[in-house]
Amino acid sequence: MIPTDPDTRTILDRCDELATYSASPTGIDRRYLTPQHAAVNALVAGWLEQAGLLRTWQDAAGNQWGRLEGFRPGLPALVLGSHLDSVPDAGRYDGILGVTVAVQIAERLRSNRLPFALEVVAFGDEEGSRFGATLLGSRAVAGSWDAAWWELVDEDGLSLADAFTAFGLDPARVGEAARSRESIVGYLEPHIEQGPLLEEADRSLAVVSGIAGATRALVTLEGEARHCATPYAARRDAMLGACEQILAVDEIARAAGCYVTMGHLAVEPDAVNVVAGQVTYSIDLRSPDDDLRATTWARLCERIEELAAARRLGVSVQVTHSARATTVDPRLAQLVRAGIQATGDADPMMLPSIAGHDTMAMADLCEVAMLFVRCGGGISHHPDESVRAQDVAAAVTALERTVLDLAEDHQTDAIRDTA
Amino acid sequence: MIPTDPDTRTILDRCDELATYSASPTGIDRRYLTPQHAAVNALVAGWLEQAGLLRTWQDAAGNQWGRLEGFRPGLPALVLGSHLDSVPDAGRYDGILGVTVAVQIAERLRSNRLPFALEVVAFGDEEGSRFGATLLGSRAVAGSWDAAWWELVDEDGLSLADAFTAFGLDPARVGEAARSRESIVGYLEPHIEQGPLLEEADRSLAVVSGIAGATRALVTLEGEARHCATPYAARRDAMLGACEQILAVDEIARAAGCYVTMGHLAVEPDAVNVVAGQVTYSIDLRSPDDDLRATTWARLCERIEELAAARRLGVSVQVTHSARATTVDPRLAQLVRAGIQATGDADPMMLPSIAGHDTMAMADLCEVAMLFVRCGGGISHHPDESVRAQDVAAAVTALERTVLDLAEDHQTDAIRDTA
Repeated sequence: MIPTDPDTRTILDRCDELATYSASPTGIDRRYLTPQHAAVNALVAGWLEQAGLLRTWQDAAGNQWGRLEGFRPGLPALVLGSHLDSVPDAGRYDGILGVTVAVQIAERLRSNRLPFALEVVAFGDEEGSRFGATLLGSRAVAGSWDAAWWELVDEDGLSLADAFTAFGLDPARVGEAARSRESIVGYLEPHIEQGPLLEEADRSLAVVSGIAGATRALVTLEGEARHCATPYAARRDAMLGACEQILAVDEIARAAGCYVTMGHLAVEPDAVNVVAGQVTYSIDLRSPDDDLRATTWARLCERIEELAAARRLGVSVQVTHSARATTVDPRLAQLVRAGIQATGDADPMMLPSIAGHDTMAMADLCEVAMLFVRCGGGISHHPDESVRAQDVAAAVTALERTVLDLAEDHQTDAIRDTA
Repeated sequence: MIPTDPDTRTILDRCDELATYSASPTGIDRRYLTPQHAAVNALVAGWLEQAGLLRTWQDAAGNQWGRLEGFRPGLPALVLGSHLDSVPDAGRYDGILGVTVAVQIAERLRSNRLPFALEVVAFGDEEGSRFGATLLGSRAVAGSWDAAWWELVDEDGLSLADAFTAFGLDPARVGEAARSRESIVGYLEPHIEQGPLLEEADRSLAVVSGIAGATRALVTLEGEARHCATPYAARRDAMLGACEQILAVDEIARAAGCYVTMGHLAVEPDAVNVVAGQVTYSIDLRSPDDDLRATTWARLCERIEELAAARRLGVSVQVTHSARATTVDPRLAQLVRAGIQATGDADPMMLPSIAGHDTMAMADLCEVAMLFVRCGGGISHHPDESVRAQDVAAAVTALERTVLDLAEDHQTDAIRDTA
């Protein structure tokens, strides 16, 4: 067994400690603007201060920050971080690991006089587990907050606006969380892979090549709720129609090389002895290639219409979310790659991220890049989420190197600009 | 337009009046042992008394009865009737029409000195809408009450035992609702067809040839809940497995000539961006031919296992209900047929009932037969349930004839027995 270095030990211990802040007694459940959110912000603020980031603050959207000044005060900042919120019954590393790694890198660089400030951010909402809309924390920072969100309600019917107030925030001041482009050098996010490809390739780290764009939709099929004694010829069975469509959507999207998931399905009246009158199912279609996603989506819609017509079912397709693919900055990605090479991996993997990340929102504000860390069995959004100490150590080494290389580039740029 | 005779007018008006007793402000919802149940029992008791059935009573299971003595008191009874409970958002004729027609026939025969008593029954639970198990009212009468039912709970968590007490009944005395074989001559149930075959054939009435046996089961598929970024090769998607199985079950059962319905489906975790970890769906398989149902069920189970294995899904099939087909009494069915002929239909249709009825439970106790009445569009268990006045009038004529013919047979038998 490889002995764990003190930085890695601290990171893993902190992930364990954060896991104890949960709204659920049986698993990890930590959502935006809850008492658990306030508690972990305070905890992380303490770690940031210990790490020498003497200025810490919670912004107007509930994100926690810490700042280490560069060689002189007031320089634009390189931001490292990820999110602290979770899905229900979550693991302890998705998002969390990116924050705890960022704190440790900042601590290691506390005495360097960098040509930029170093900021650590812990976003308050990435998963969207409480109000449905995702990336609320990072969107506030990127200045892409949508006023329509104020009306969103949680499971208890509490609006986002009221939750803001209850958390001690002022909805009218959410704009103050937005950062100016001039104040940010870039955003670097370390994150677990949430897939099995690093494990399969026996690698610790990967450079993220981009983040998939996504189309999410609800397809509603209208048949007729009929007694199960109804002869087949007189049935318009929305269940059979939905099953046929789900299999067709899977086949088409898979053949096209997109990721597709049908994870939600609801039946009306949902009775054992009644032919289904209405079925609604979800489609989540993703690809790092926006054109491929668009052509595949068009083919899916065409096929859905054809299949519904053949069964005399009414059909409506409601697109609930559509986001373009996120491009990472080539220079930052190259520096992340060099950082991974510094850990001994001569030819680092490049992987697209199919999952969404705060990096998507931050890309509207500044140059971005991401580093993936291997996770056990590709498992995420599950209590069995796991990481290896050696991979966490490698992530710290790689990203510290990335920051130092970026500092060197900046100084070179500054000299050239002055010349 | 054919003018409606007074008996038919009374029957249709009473169906309308019963429809006003509902737990829902927006539709018909009348379940076992509710205040609405008590109210319609009292209403029907009043109609029975008006019809000359001077003895009326609510039995130990909450069924409403009325009795017209034969030529001398204490004779075994021919029972006519159906049920007064409903599914949620029901129509106004399923069950109800059988009760209101039975009241009218009894009234028309009030002065006849029949060789048997005539009883009208309004069962309190056929649909099973409140406690899940069906035919509770008629099973109490048939003596096939199951003590395990006492633990069943309704949507509010109230047990059947507690609902009995709240209704003013004593669970310990439910056995008193059971009738002896000696006390019953037979059971005749008029009921809407709940299918479109009479309408398609332009007929008013049909003799029921038998009631389909049924197998109901819940199939649970265990995959793995995974983030939608999981590559296809690593997924064990319970949703795709369920869709494939539902289509296969439909195809096999249909080809075999059975009725099959998959009306319920539940997904875990049921999230748009998570591959389904678990799906449970229902199968309701029916056939008037028990052997055909058994061989088809075996083939379905085999195919379900094969398909689950091919997708590396765990599978369990839990049979929740299994009932043999019900055979109607040939002599009673012949008398129903003759009754229909008396309405001018020289060659009445014989139809199997795919839906379940109180007749199934009563068949354990006595000889049974059923008469189907055409319904609009084959629609049932739906607010759009409808009947035509001319068909209701025909049903009264036919069943009155059936009762009188049975009386003649009985007298002939009695003379022969005495000889």
